[in-house]
Amino acid sequence: MTFSHISHLSCAKCSFVYKPDEVHQLCRCGSPLLVNYDLSSISMKVKRAHLLNRSNDLWRYHELLPVQHPDNIVSLGEGMTPLLPMKKIGQEMGLPRLLMKDESLTPTGTFKARGAALGVSKAKELGVKAFVMPTNGNAGAAWSLYAAKAGIEAVIVMPVAAPPFIRSEVAATGSRLFFVDGLISDAGKMAAKAAADFHLYDASTLKEPYRIEGKKTMGYEIAEMMDWQVPDVIIYPAGGGVGLIGIYKAFRELQQLGWVDQGKMPRLVAVQSEGCAPIVKAWQEGKMESELWRDSKTVAFGINVPKALGDFLVLKAIYETNGFALSVNDEEILEEQKRIVQTEGAFVCPEGAATFLAARKLGNAGVIDQKDTVVTVNTGMGLKYLHVDEQNTPVLQRDGYIKSLIDE
Amino acid sequence: MTFSHISHLSCAKCSFVYKPDEVHQLCRCGSPLLVNYDLSSISMKVKRAHLLNRSNDLWRYHELLPVQHPDNIVSLGEGMTPLLPMKKIGQEMGLPRLLMKDESLTPTGTFKARGAALGVSKAKELGVKAFVMPTNGNAGAAWSLYAAKAGIEAVIVMPVAAPPFIRSEVAATGSRLFFVDGLISDAGKMAAKAAADFHLYDASTLKEPYRIEGKKTMGYEIAEMMDWQVPDVIIYPAGGGVGLIGIYKAFRELQQLGWVDQGKMPRLVAVQSEGCAPIVKAWQEGKMESELWRDSKTVAFGINVPKALGDFLVLKAIYETNGFALSVNDEEILEEQKRIVQTEGAFVCPEGAATFLAARKLGNAGVIDQKDTVVTVNTGMGLKYLHVDEQNTPVLQRDGYIKSLIDE
Repeated sequence: MTFSHISHLSCAKCSFVYKPDEVHQLCRCGSPLLVNYDLSSISMKVKRAHLLNRSNDLWRYHELLPVQHPDNIVSLGEGMTPLLPMKKIGQEMGLPRLLMKDESLTPTGTFKARGAALGVSKAKELGVKAFVMPTNGNAGAAWSLYAAKAGIEAVIVMPVAAPPFIRSEVAATGSRLFFVDGLISDAGKMAAKAAADFHLYDASTLKEPYRIEGKKTMGYEIAEMMDWQVPDVIIYPAGGGVGLIGIYKAFRELQQLGWVDQGKMPRLVAVQSEGCAPIVKAWQEGKMESELWRDSKTVAFGINVPKALGDFLVLKAIYETNGFALSVNDEEILEEQKRIVQTEGAFVCPEGAATFLAARKLGNAGVIDQKDTVVTVNTGMGLKYLHVDEQNTPVLQRDGYIKSLIDE
Repeated sequence: MTFSHISHLSCAKCSFVYKPDEVHQLCRCGSPLLVNYDLSSISMKVKRAHLLNRSNDLWRYHELLPVQHPDNIVSLGEGMTPLLPMKKIGQEMGLPRLLMKDESLTPTGTFKARGAALGVSKAKELGVKAFVMPTNGNAGAAWSLYAAKAGIEAVIVMPVAAPPFIRSEVAATGSRLFFVDGLISDAGKMAAKAAADFHLYDASTLKEPYRIEGKKTMGYEIAEMMDWQVPDVIIYPAGGGVGLIGIYKAFRELQQLGWVDQGKMPRLVAVQSEGCAPIVKAWQEGKMESELWRDSKTVAFGINVPKALGDFLVLKAIYETNGFALSVNDEEILEEQKRIVQTEGAFVCPEGAATFLAARKLGNAGVIDQKDTVVTVNTGMGLKYLHVDEQNTPVLQRDGYIKSLIDE
């Protein structure tokens, strides 16, 4: 049995073709490469029911993933995160069929582990010994840990303004870490220069073709966990947008395999922060690419991406699925986050809270119908961003006791 | 079909029997209650293969759990955490068949979510409106979140010396939080008084009978993920010891069901910190109960429990499985934690690192054989305890670049 049915890489813009068993970064035209599979061969050999007996992680979809030999898999148990009904908050916002794909139950606590698992495994298969990557934090933490397991050296460049917690997490992995007094775009320039200067593999978003293959498994899992029904709407917090590109790719592949209804795609919604909304602006203007967003700023640190290399793919996915793009403000995000934790017990990250807020707004505006099945993607743990005022908590002495439960 | 095959509660010491559909705390003799099931009826109706088509969480074992109506389930997607081969570090310590049950991939990032899911769901089923619980932190965070989802009021009492991060996590849930300038035993006394004063359900460890039913599912999952083979050794970091009691109960139940080899139990190993090792001391002295450990102190905050209510059950499980108890020191724990993250990419908590250290020591001492399949239980994310010195990380200016990868 063939483990992976990868056939070739192709440029997302000019369609130029590359071999799958060589190290590639961007296309010679400067655009990202996508991975292609022999889907007709997979559809003959693999049935949906075969998945039931497989490993309880994203590697259950191995024919549709790029790693050609199982020995090269570097796994920390990623994938098969829950798809949870959000009944109380869904009822409250008039969307009773609201679900959350909860990526907080992932190694390192964020969905970045999916991209890192595939990216690092394939790098190992291709013989890569060291890589450099710019990151807003969570991707750097994930790639560092998978690199440690693979025995690959990781050089990480991240904004010094990243959440302190995530900074410390990356430091703990033993990677070569550099902070930059600037944004991820500044970190990206330094990574590119270091890649050239020190002959390192450049693991920047979409400069390597494989993380998208990890993130697309969110789409497979949503379909499998809905018993191969296609949801009406999927809402995703778009920074680099790789998850949204991946989910789009996943559903197109599932259609070609005949595993889902071939006439229905989920409407894909990108949500950004008002402090950094280049894709929303481009979508509102009907454009195919975004422009650099100056002086970007948001509490949802993971979506502070002023110009995404894959913006044109995100916009294409939105246009082709009759989707939507909208921005929300930081204050509303934090209110929504609090509402979610206190009604649903889910401590989602600000990016995840933004998807709930988007559902609420699109429901109110009539863009989403109350009959729609709506999947929000919570990309990580709220815990990793924690700044909570606990100064009002009473401190009891060792011989004290609780005198009252009534607020004074 | 009967959803739960619960039959009755019985005292772990005097065997007095209680009905399953009433609120109970401790037995009238002061000992913890255990849940019993009609196992012969389950073994006739349920086959192991039925599990394959079930939900990807601990509720797949619902006949063996106490919640009688599925509507009462309060779930955040807990259970079915990975059982990961730890090849590199296993080879290095001479135990090539080393595995880790990784509980960091659980809502709230620790195994406490299992106990909270069952405890809160059953409390909801029994009509409980409010509870109080003392906690070292992680259990309080988990119970707070499940309570929020269930709409039950939670009053939490925890040592002010708990990791700042976990303190803030509990504060974020909106529970009624009290800090105490003392240990969990002090918090326990205050919780007991508050339970009496304000007529609250006391959700202290083993004062409610159901969290153990959540934790035992770790045992079911280990067996199912090993294709119903019984591992030779399971190593568990014992504080209150409920997980170890639960794993023991799980394997006994699986034996009675005929789902695993009826002649083999895993050897159960309890690891504690040298700064708080009451169960190790009792085991070394061949006793059936532990004594209060004075001035306890350890970096592994979750196992800082000076006297566990269920100590006699932990000791019984160790004796009956030809197990072992040992203590390790904090310095070694932190070294092992670093070794694990940098070789296996797994950022385990100090308690989890202690189980690896125990494997290493027992392997060296010949207590564990190199042919043994050894499962370490990592009870949570290292992230939640993070204190890392990152002061040596260079900060690059916006127009700077990485000048060298060689340490100066």
